[in-house]
Amino acid sequence: MVIANFPQLKLRLQNLPPKTAVVAAAHDEHTLQAVFNACQDGLIQPILVGHRAQILSIAQRLGAVLDPTQVVDAQDDADCAAKAVALIRSGRGAMLVKGMLPTGTLLKAVVKKESGIRAGEVMSHVAILDVPNYHKLLYITDGGMVVAPDLEQKRHILQNAVDFCRFLGYDRPKAAALCAVETVSSAMPETADAAALKAEGERGDFGPCIVEGPIALDLATDREAARVKGYHSPVAGDADILLAPSIAAGNLLGKSLYGLAGGKMAGVVLGADVPITVNSRGATAEEKYWSILICTAMN
Amino acid sequence: MVIANFPQLKLRLQNLPPKTAVVAAAHDEHTLQAVFNACQDGLIQPILVGHRAQILSIAQRLGAVLDPTQVVDAQDDADCAAKAVALIRSGRGAMLVKGMLPTGTLLKAVVKKESGIRAGEVMSHVAILDVPNYHKLLYITDGGMVVAPDLEQKRHILQNAVDFCRFLGYDRPKAAALCAVETVSSAMPETADAAALKAEGERGDFGPCIVEGPIALDLATDREAARVKGYHSPVAGDADILLAPSIAAGNLLGKSLYGLAGGKMAGVVLGADVPITVNSRGATAEEKYWSILICTAMN
Repeated sequence: MVIANFPQLKLRLQNLPPKTAVVAAAHDEHTLQAVFNACQDGLIQPILVGHRAQILSIAQRLGAVLDPTQVVDAQDDADCAAKAVALIRSGRGAMLVKGMLPTGTLLKAVVKKESGIRAGEVMSHVAILDVPNYHKLLYITDGGMVVAPDLEQKRHILQNAVDFCRFLGYDRPKAAALCAVETVSSAMPETADAAALKAEGERGDFGPCIVEGPIALDLATDREAARVKGYHSPVAGDADILLAPSIAAGNLLGKSLYGLAGGKMAGVVLGADVPITVNSRGATAEEKYWSILICTAMN
Repeated sequence: MVIANFPQLKLRLQNLPPKTAVVAAAHDEHTLQAVFNACQDGLIQPILVGHRAQILSIAQRLGAVLDPTQVVDAQDDADCAAKAVALIRSGRGAMLVKGMLPTGTLLKAVVKKESGIRAGEVMSHVAILDVPNYHKLLYITDGGMVVAPDLEQKRHILQNAVDFCRFLGYDRPKAAALCAVETVSSAMPETADAAALKAEGERGDFGPCIVEGPIALDLATDREAARVKGYHSPVAGDADILLAPSIAAGNLLGKSLYGLAGGKMAGVVLGADVPITVNSRGATAEEKYWSILICTAMN
């Protein structure tokens, strides 16, 4: 199974029953535009947490009809985050959507021991990229959450991404544990981690998937480069998941494919009870829409 | 001074007197095509080291007229590398061009204590990218040589790139010390290195240039992203040099801009007595040409 781009993802997901999305700090035009579009497309039913008056006024401007029971008034960022997380915790929503508040504030409420919704051992970020020069969606992880992952944390990051792809319908997602080279070198510890993940993948530790590594980006995404270099792997030129060796590398990779390669990006945090959309402050309504869309596949 | 792309670089450099280029393992069609094109354009005069018979036959096929004194017969890869480096060491060439041999073999001869041509303390790699979605050339360093640079090595890597840009005619190249974030964090030691490099740049340690850091890729290359996030710096959206925090990050960045962002790439190793072109085995004649071209600026 291959998903070529976001519109094709939409075709796959649009006939699922709508999921309830809890929106934290919903008083933002791009966020509400994305939410209302997703409602219209039958993907979600929203609960909007935030400044009630602002939400109603933006909704009116956007021509959306809101049931007042769908709006939960909240004050500052921390209050928006806490109320939204509490709604998820009480079973009222299947995804958490980040609105006009810092990612850190939202995640602080998510991971809070007594009131949060953390599920797995490691929460990780996946940037989903629809890049014109690649034949299918790319899942880049982790350029946004786990700062300096050790091998054990990389296992969780990879597992989160594989599970996510399996929810989306991938039979055997192909993961590349990226490094600068294809050989294990003691000077580059990430190469040993990559080889370990490959071995663990082969014995089935991550479920149905194919893990390759250490492997450089050109071999993972460019079949012709792999051919020229005589590199053979089912992942060569055909990776779905790109596992970065560090947050710095993952962040660079996502941002280069987004900005300079002209890609469209969705962003999701995995490892909580529900998927969490996280878009940067500058994200367009369209990007927020794709993030919501991709979360509807889970649970 | 701004160089928008490789063709514009050519316009700037084509009236310099031709430099002598020593080509190691020249028995390769793409390499010779690039060399002959550079000769025709008056950029270089070559000395071709390698399998003489093969070189002459490829030259004939390409319709090039070769003076036999320009060909130095050599046998295996190590012999090609040693003889080419010896020519540079004896003052016969102003640049070393990698032909059909592994980069490692060539550089081994370069760094040899008693017979090599190593000059500075740190040799580093710069990938020069001509990316359609960016308004000028990007200089990415180091995704190919220095594996896990500490702050002192980063200083040399940055200095090598700044000096290179100054040779090319940049008055005050703008360098971004890339990280995943814009703030110093003890969890990400590369952010402290980036802040140190910025401070050192401000007091003039690297000569005329502007160093910014820590800074994420989107802010360094996308003016609109910087505006939305309220980030102000002369480097915002206008970086020339992208200093990567690790070889893995630099390698990913170069390869993503090359493959997935549709860029053209030249590659140079700095820190030896002369610049050294290094292109991957799959590089086209055109890419090898750009690498040779850019080296003609130095001496």
